[in-house]
Amino acid sequence: MFAARNLRRKLGDSAEIELINAENYFVFQPLLPEVAAGQITAPHAATPLRLLLKGVFVRKAIVHGIDFEKREITVFQGVQRRPTVVRYDHLVLALGQSTDLSMITGLSEHAMTLKTLEDGRLLRSHVIEKLEHAEITQLPEVKRQTLTFTVIGAGFSGIETVGEMAEFIDRSLKYYKNVDRSEIRIVVIEMADRALAELPTTLGTYARRKLEARGIEFQLNTGVTSASGTHLVTSKGEWIGTRTIVATIGNAPSKLVRELGLPLKAGKIQVDRSFRVPEVDNVWALGDCALIPMVDSPQEKSDYAPPTAQFAVREARHLVKCIHASFRGKPLKPFSYSSKGALASLGARRGVGDLMGIKISGFPAWLIWRAYYVAFLPGMSTRFRVLMNWLLDMITPRNVAQLSKPRPPGARHVLYHAGDRIYEKGNRADGVYTVVSGAVEMITEDPQTGKEYRRRLGPGEHFGMRLILGEDRRQATARAAEHTRVLILEREEVMKIADGIEDFRHHFETLIERELGHYWDWRGTSSKNDVSAVD
Amino acid sequence: MFAARNLRRKLGDSAEIELINAENYFVFQPLLPEVAAGQITAPHAATPLRLLLKGVFVRKAIVHGIDFEKREITVFQGVQRRPTVVRYDHLVLALGQSTDLSMITGLSEHAMTLKTLEDGRLLRSHVIEKLEHAEITQLPEVKRQTLTFTVIGAGFSGIETVGEMAEFIDRSLKYYKNVDRSEIRIVVIEMADRALAELPTTLGTYARRKLEARGIEFQLNTGVTSASGTHLVTSKGEWIGTRTIVATIGNAPSKLVRELGLPLKAGKIQVDRSFRVPEVDNVWALGDCALIPMVDSPQEKSDYAPPTAQFAVREARHLVKCIHASFRGKPLKPFSYSSKGALASLGARRGVGDLMGIKISGFPAWLIWRAYYVAFLPGMSTRFRVLMNWLLDMITPRNVAQLSKPRPPGARHVLYHAGDRIYEKGNRADGVYTVVSGAVEMITEDPQTGKEYRRRLGPGEHFGMRLILGEDRRQATARAAEHTRVLILEREEVMKIADGIEDFRHHFETLIERELGHYWDWRGTSSKNDVSAVD
Repeated sequence: MFAARNLRRKLGDSAEIELINAENYFVFQPLLPEVAAGQITAPHAATPLRLLLKGVFVRKAIVHGIDFEKREITVFQGVQRRPTVVRYDHLVLALGQSTDLSMITGLSEHAMTLKTLEDGRLLRSHVIEKLEHAEITQLPEVKRQTLTFTVIGAGFSGIETVGEMAEFIDRSLKYYKNVDRSEIRIVVIEMADRALAELPTTLGTYARRKLEARGIEFQLNTGVTSASGTHLVTSKGEWIGTRTIVATIGNAPSKLVRELGLPLKAGKIQVDRSFRVPEVDNVWALGDCALIPMVDSPQEKSDYAPPTAQFAVREARHLVKCIHASFRGKPLKPFSYSSKGALASLGARRGVGDLMGIKISGFPAWLIWRAYYVAFLPGMSTRFRVLMNWLLDMITPRNVAQLSKPRPPGARHVLYHAGDRIYEKGNRADGVYTVVSGAVEMITEDPQTGKEYRRRLGPGEHFGMRLILGEDRRQATARAAEHTRVLILEREEVMKIADGIEDFRHHFETLIERELGHYWDWRGTSSKNDVSAVD
Repeated sequence: MFAARNLRRKLGDSAEIELINAENYFVFQPLLPEVAAGQITAPHAATPLRLLLKGVFVRKAIVHGIDFEKREITVFQGVQRRPTVVRYDHLVLALGQSTDLSMITGLSEHAMTLKTLEDGRLLRSHVIEKLEHAEITQLPEVKRQTLTFTVIGAGFSGIETVGEMAEFIDRSLKYYKNVDRSEIRIVVIEMADRALAELPTTLGTYARRKLEARGIEFQLNTGVTSASGTHLVTSKGEWIGTRTIVATIGNAPSKLVRELGLPLKAGKIQVDRSFRVPEVDNVWALGDCALIPMVDSPQEKSDYAPPTAQFAVREARHLVKCIHASFRGKPLKPFSYSSKGALASLGARRGVGDLMGIKISGFPAWLIWRAYYVAFLPGMSTRFRVLMNWLLDMITPRNVAQLSKPRPPGARHVLYHAGDRIYEKGNRADGVYTVVSGAVEMITEDPQTGKEYRRRLGPGEHFGMRLILGEDRRQATARAAEHTRVLILEREEVMKIADGIEDFRHHFETLIERELGHYWDWRGTSSKNDVSAVD
């Protein structure tokens, strides 16, 4: 966005500038923890690209592939399925990074991230749901799990997330009479030996102490070995019962960056000191997707530009000079910039930072943080909206309205640790379950004698099939006998697929007849709309 | 909400009052069109029930069933699957109404509604998506469809929705240089012979004329016979090419009301003039779910309380008096109230209304509408938030940021009219398709000779299966040969189910080998996370 805007300013009408982006808005990443904490509503944190980029053609599209020889980009635009080819003279890659959590078992299935505006909205809704659940549950273990919030990573993102989350919870507790602050556990888990490794040690320590004073627990030198819907297991062997895992780790190249065929190093596109991608013509890369050397023979991490907004904005400015110079056949100057410092908000009107070597902390740091980010926000109307939200937040209570969460996908995988209760007799039936790997033990009780029967299910076997017949309460209890991966299919999903795919229908028809002794009148239970009614 | 609040005020600590609701917030329905038009952000329009109802126990739960004999309600709370039984001495049913669009083919699949806050958010996102699509599409027919917006129903909800939607589009067009106002078609379809049948004829006519002057087309005396993703067919035989259908019709009793076993009339719970439900003890019903007689021997529709917020609030007030009287064994007074009038916003700072017989319209009506609703909003902080949003909207441009739409479900049914293009060769593959009913014609072309081959598929047959093998572009063109219902399964969905259910996997393995001559290495393509890695 900054590159396109600067190019437009520098080149005027002498060039056509186009920005291709999957979303039609710009969101300032450091505001995401505030969106997650309900301080700023999501729409007010987003600025439409079309508003910011007058004179730039904004194409809301997903890039499918790039042909560097032909200088063509193939894109799919919005809901369109027809591919569009966009030709370029110069191409700037500013693809950022995405997240890959697959290195830790269960993390992709059960952890939340905070990379997009939607993530922020979901996290807010999730935290409120946990408070609502804690308010009414009668089971002490479930209450402990719902009131335990874990954040993986104590970098800027992890610290700001946990600070804002704690403030949100603290300010909301007055509405939840059955929840006491002492029952809440907020844990930050960090591999390194300190928080905010990007800042001087004293500031990292200050941040940790301030957050600890607000009841946030730090586990340093600690990793995560696995996660499920109810637990997180640390490298020190602790089983933390939790239903909230926010992962701020796992930066990885985006799918497109991996597929471009450009030379990558540490998951980033290697460029020269003027952002040129070697071996391809007129292609430039900058921001988090690029590995930008700050010296001629880079040796270590600190010889490259750090992946911060501060640098990205300067890079965009310098890029325009490079492109302009290349037009006139002039030599390109190498990018150089030295950090003016760093700031982090700790929530609850406290911050910490290092501004040109001067260490600041507490309320002044928080105030500078806010002032800096408002000044930094692109677009007057967004600045104004964010300021209004902050003002509203100061004079009104935090809003705990839990806007609808998106429905979980109709088919999903869930992981259970050995011994986990999957469901209990009498529970609401929320899907048809299939063992994908591991083993499940089904426990039924003879209603006459009270005798317990146990049955072990392995991969490919189903349980909870009575839901297909419309029985919405569980008749048995299911527990994971080992580490187990389960496929959960919602009833509506089963019905829709059965309606179309006969082998799928037969599969369940046969099983239901054999195992439950029932005839499945699938037509009677599926959608009643009939297309032939149109004729 | 109003009943619980009034009961609390009247009865104080002498009673325990509990409110059971699926959401933890209250939203004022007349604000929904403004949420859909981006004038108020969704979180700012919602007021947490816990804030409004101090001293009332708020239970965020879904009611599973009511035993009127035992005076017990079985609920499922939030994400909990364990049922909870709630006992009552007095039960007030205020369940509102829901929507049933199944009477018109294709409407449940392809129409949007505006009953919940989430609906408002989705409609806003949907309209922006259409503008983004229109901005970049090269196909004139697709552009026409994306720029045609239809609203079914010209009652209060339909009129306010279309007025706000038109304002939103008009104010956003400056960002879409390739879209001209003349290309936009906004149509209201209404069975009756006039708009706003609830108001005097002159006002309905005024509203229609004002909206017509803003380029909105009215089709009165017109119904809808069918809908698909690209068309709406009217009872007059017109095929309107559109990708936006908002249905404000189809009020129907909610699932719970239907299942309660209480005497219904016109889909509503029949009560006496003091809201008592006959034949069950201590059960009261009011609001839109109840049929409340305003005279002793009601004959026609006008003898019952209309389903408006104005009446509902008065009913809640009178209910408290009735319950209080019943405690003291006193006779219950019948509910009586006469409407003080009605107001509708037409968007763009125009309104129309009838206040105690005085007809008002234009800007004054709009201003009174706003003042009335702000005064009516419960909770100071919500009032303040809504006012701030209105202020922001006056001084900043309308925000066209399209926040992420929820992903469509992994399995979904889509309807096509005969001749509809389902997809074309070269299109991005968005799912594995199965004919549920009707017929599909596949068109392939011999790359050497250019000769066309046509193949007809019937129920149970698949197309677009190459996506399973990872081919993300279509190799053939698919068209609906008749009215056809298709099941679309996303690739991820197919993979997840194949991972668990062998018969499903076999089904596709066999077909892929036979029809495409390929071996499907499904393990290589499915999720790489392996639970055994935990051990």
